[in-house]
Amino acid sequence: MKPELTAHGHLMANEAAQAMAVFCASASQDLTALVAQQGIGDAKAIYTIARGSSDAVANILSYEFMRELGVPVTSLPPSVFSLGRGVDVGGAAVLIISQSGASDDLVYSAKGAAAKGAKVIAITNQPYSSVEKAAALAIPIGAGAELAVPATKTVVGSIAAGTALLSALVPSYGLRAKSAIDCLRAISTVHPKADDLRASFLRARHVYVIGRDTGYGAAHEVALKLKECCALHAEAYSASEVLHGPLQLATNPLMVLILDTGAGNIKASLDQAEARFRAVGCDVQRISPADLGARDLTPAAAAALMLAVMYQIILKTALALGLNPDAPETLSKVTKTT
Amino acid sequence: MKPELTAHGHLMANEAAQAMAVFCASASQDLTALVAQQGIGDAKAIYTIARGSSDAVANILSYEFMRELGVPVTSLPPSVFSLGRGVDVGGAAVLIISQSGASDDLVYSAKGAAAKGAKVIAITNQPYSSVEKAAALAIPIGAGAELAVPATKTVVGSIAAGTALLSALVPSYGLRAKSAIDCLRAISTVHPKADDLRASFLRARHVYVIGRDTGYGAAHEVALKLKECCALHAEAYSASEVLHGPLQLATNPLMVLILDTGAGNIKASLDQAEARFRAVGCDVQRISPADLGARDLTPAAAAALMLAVMYQIILKTALALGLNPDAPETLSKVTKTT
Repeated sequence: MKPELTAHGHLMANEAAQAMAVFCASASQDLTALVAQQGIGDAKAIYTIARGSSDAVANILSYEFMRELGVPVTSLPPSVFSLGRGVDVGGAAVLIISQSGASDDLVYSAKGAAAKGAKVIAITNQPYSSVEKAAALAIPIGAGAELAVPATKTVVGSIAAGTALLSALVPSYGLRAKSAIDCLRAISTVHPKADDLRASFLRARHVYVIGRDTGYGAAHEVALKLKECCALHAEAYSASEVLHGPLQLATNPLMVLILDTGAGNIKASLDQAEARFRAVGCDVQRISPADLGARDLTPAAAAALMLAVMYQIILKTALALGLNPDAPETLSKVTKTT
Repeated sequence: MKPELTAHGHLMANEAAQAMAVFCASASQDLTALVAQQGIGDAKAIYTIARGSSDAVANILSYEFMRELGVPVTSLPPSVFSLGRGVDVGGAAVLIISQSGASDDLVYSAKGAAAKGAKVIAITNQPYSSVEKAAALAIPIGAGAELAVPATKTVVGSIAAGTALLSALVPSYGLRAKSAIDCLRAISTVHPKADDLRASFLRARHVYVIGRDTGYGAAHEVALKLKECCALHAEAYSASEVLHGPLQLATNPLMVLILDTGAGNIKASLDQAEARFRAVGCDVQRISPADLGARDLTPAAAAALMLAVMYQIILKTALALGLNPDAPETLSKVTKTT
């Protein structure tokens, strides 16, 4: 066995490096026939149910789906089905995202939502999982085995699976998604300021990760990974929400990372947040797909790209701190909760 | 002018002390006729729209309403209406919570949701506000003027306004709410371990505030106030969610505050989280209405009581840190965002 294969972080490094290839393959799935057969396009509302990184994906997809479909796409807590008696979801679709498809609470949710009248759609990386079996439509992430505890390629692949679903529902979106996939096939995910960002994380005691629209869900995922891999307290906020009470944390040493998807309608909001945090002396960093030469991405693809970029920087930060991101000491790959 | 009246924190202390009286008055409103007139009970789904502390209230109410009504109650981001073109909310009710009723994004949301077919309900503390004017049904918080920047009595009063709404929709819930109000009229909100909790906060560099069901929204509000008043990085998690990636932060000095509403179906989950955090050496504190002798509260009333308790402890922590919670240096009472 080569020494490199046993080094800390090699699993996560290897899997994070596959993220964009997984995205392109998963987003290219043609789901048109399956979606038409299930009548998913008739849903009056979509409820997402997910935990952790998958819930960050659900958040990213909610903005993309609301913009394209014009119906509410919101998040239901699994406990409504796992601890409570459920709610009536007749006429709605329920989108469950789970890498393993095996968590008890999500299995309860899939069965409960189906019993309460919803069309259940499952995005999982495990064929024939319990969540898939309870679903009317299963969309594979197709990322292959993921061995590092922190999920990377499956997270980006889940965004892609959602992109494939939306492409099947809205053909004009499918054309834009195809352009984004073509752009991402050729992209480097090594950010030109990667070393600066790592240095900022190493100096930081607290981090806010800020985004809006699909960048807000990406901010959730980056904040989660900074805790999981680097034991660094990072928290996600929308650019508007953070200017209420949370701004006061800036009186303690605070790093602010802004994930800018490049969408025109959020620029003023991100600019305002950046200016306010700079004015009170924070270390503010801002990254965008344009930094890597990417153009004309869909907002969800832009979020996926920023995750692929950040995974590598977070990994290097963890290694610099002497941590093993492949297997954080307090965590295991499958978490059993209700 | 007496010296006490100009001391730091006197506004917040005074207003937080009124919280339970505001709760009892606001929750006792009889909205039966108004609610019947508007047909709110026919809604197939309820969407909440709010920011900051009001969004924590929306989270608390979502669990209470889902349990009692059996319909999905989920959160829509205001940006869907303020930056985007909105979504179809025909057949649904939209509950907007805003102390001032004046924030631009919530005004856009109220008007947008009404135009897209929703019955709009407004909970505000400001009669004739712009949000109220766009609503079919306005429920006053009735807390009186709130002068400290950190909202306290209006937050607890918003939970109460939601309690009054639910009582009008579900008479059997109204009877349980009345018992809770009777209990809370006589309750002390000074926690027997208040000094211990303050000492824990003063030692802490990072705090997780943990709850489930209505305790989860309360955890959001407590975490927000710890940032706002004490510049202490606190983050809210559900007891199940936190055992995924966020547990790793416990390898840094971490304080964990568990808000236990006392509901039987969440006990196992909170116990599991407490055991896991204790096992990795955290300073774990857990509070519950039973500590104060309160019994048979509704879950929402239990959340309101824990907020009233925590406001006083957060205030004393801020004062011990030499901060002025009445007017945090980076914040203003009304935040203009889109």
